[in-house]
Amino acid sequence: MVSGNRSVERGKRRIALEIQYDGTRFNGWQVQGEGRTIQGELEKSIEVLTRQKIRVIASGRTDSGVHALGQIVHLDIAGDISLQRLCIGLNGILDRDVSVKNAYRCPSDFHARFSAIEREYLYLIHNHPQRSPFMQYRAMWVREKLDIDYLRRVTAHLIGEKDFASFCKKISSDGNTVRRISRIEVDAIGELIVFRIRGNAFLHNMIRIMIGTIIDMYRSDVPPDYILEILKERDREMSGITASAFGLYLNRIEYNPPLSTMESAF
Amino acid sequence: MVSGNRSVERGKRRIALEIQYDGTRFNGWQVQGEGRTIQGELEKSIEVLTRQKIRVIASGRTDSGVHALGQIVHLDIAGDISLQRLCIGLNGILDRDVSVKNAYRCPSDFHARFSAIEREYLYLIHNHPQRSPFMQYRAMWVREKLDIDYLRRVTAHLIGEKDFASFCKKISSDGNTVRRISRIEVDAIGELIVFRIRGNAFLHNMIRIMIGTIIDMYRSDVPPDYILEILKERDREMSGITASAFGLYLNRIEYNPPLSTMESAF
Repeated sequence: MVSGNRSVERGKRRIALEIQYDGTRFNGWQVQGEGRTIQGELEKSIEVLTRQKIRVIASGRTDSGVHALGQIVHLDIAGDISLQRLCIGLNGILDRDVSVKNAYRCPSDFHARFSAIEREYLYLIHNHPQRSPFMQYRAMWVREKLDIDYLRRVTAHLIGEKDFASFCKKISSDGNTVRRISRIEVDAIGELIVFRIRGNAFLHNMIRIMIGTIIDMYRSDVPPDYILEILKERDREMSGITASAFGLYLNRIEYNPPLSTMESAF
Repeated sequence: MVSGNRSVERGKRRIALEIQYDGTRFNGWQVQGEGRTIQGELEKSIEVLTRQKIRVIASGRTDSGVHALGQIVHLDIAGDISLQRLCIGLNGILDRDVSVKNAYRCPSDFHARFSAIEREYLYLIHNHPQRSPFMQYRAMWVREKLDIDYLRRVTAHLIGEKDFASFCKKISSDGNTVRRISRIEVDAIGELIVFRIRGNAFLHNMIRIMIGTIIDMYRSDVPPDYILEILKERDREMSGITASAFGLYLNRIEYNPPLSTMESAF
């Protein structure tokens, strides 16, 4: 997954970027055979700005359609471009559906993925009898009125260190499917229902399958603790639909020491 | 502007639809030579649903890129389709960037444009040092911190019945450029500044030129009452830039008697 050494080459500095993107028109994070990717656009822009071919490494990949409000990436850069010029320069080159929010000078052993101690995602449901043109690529649409209290009771069962195999797209044979969810908040804000989910790490499609399963459970009128049965089975067949990618936002990645303690552009 | 009779043909009913649309991918309201328009999409969908070629008449045209949260249109329809089936049927046919919120059975002399007594628009500014990918087609981006108090003091001078010739794209030779603005509210909501503007009617581009002028004034550090000088000149050359179409939302049209007193789908 990670190419190159973890330590910084001589004459280079390790820098972390906080970036945000509207995932609608991207074929996900990672450079692949074809299609426009966030990694690809970012690396191209860095090359235009610095004349260096630099690999960027993210805290985690996001799938096609998934958004980010605070994705963190790291890269090793030669030369003495200032953090501020790096941000402003990249924002002048990047298309408008991705932007750099800040840049940090970080220790040489900082790693966007392996140094992350906590990840926070948001999931948005547009809960209204009628589809909104403005929420089309921003949230999952659920027509029937959901009960916030029910959603909170189900999600409470997901807190803690658990085996989430039932909520994983595909498990590699040696896959460890135990993850720790530290918090899930569910709030109604106007026509939106916002899930705020924090954990040490997440399996592939884990949040989208969790949300889809909860909606399925609500529709099937099963008790909230039925989700414990699903967890216990460790079987993707037991869980529900995979909720829309457009509702998912990578919101925040936490590190120790926090990025806020490092020299930054803004 | 308005084709056909104002009264309803025998055997037809006059119906008003409340519609919303994301204007980003539309070439404005009105059917023209080419390009996808809201009127065109709506009339096509009505024909698919009812097998009738029906002209729809809006409260007013919106330009390319302008959004609507509560546009009102009227049409005359034969047959006995229910208001609810009309809404649900159209929403099943229309692309997802336009939708019907409600339908009203209205008096035969109701006219979406001429019966309107008040119109309300919103204008959104994303006021943040950095561009947001999510606000790209939803608001005008202004980098420097705006002063809400200044904006309120300028807009207060625009309230009342005034000649807005300086804030009109193009004046026809016989054009009456007097309009009445009854209220302008300016509020900061997170990173957004929201203008809520009500009036009996608006000239072409009037709100966008008003907003652009206010931003220009703020940048030029002129006193708030300078806008009175601009009004007095009755000259488009005196006012400022035309603010982005993407920040403008047609929010609400009011009628007397109100639509809420009429039989409706929802």
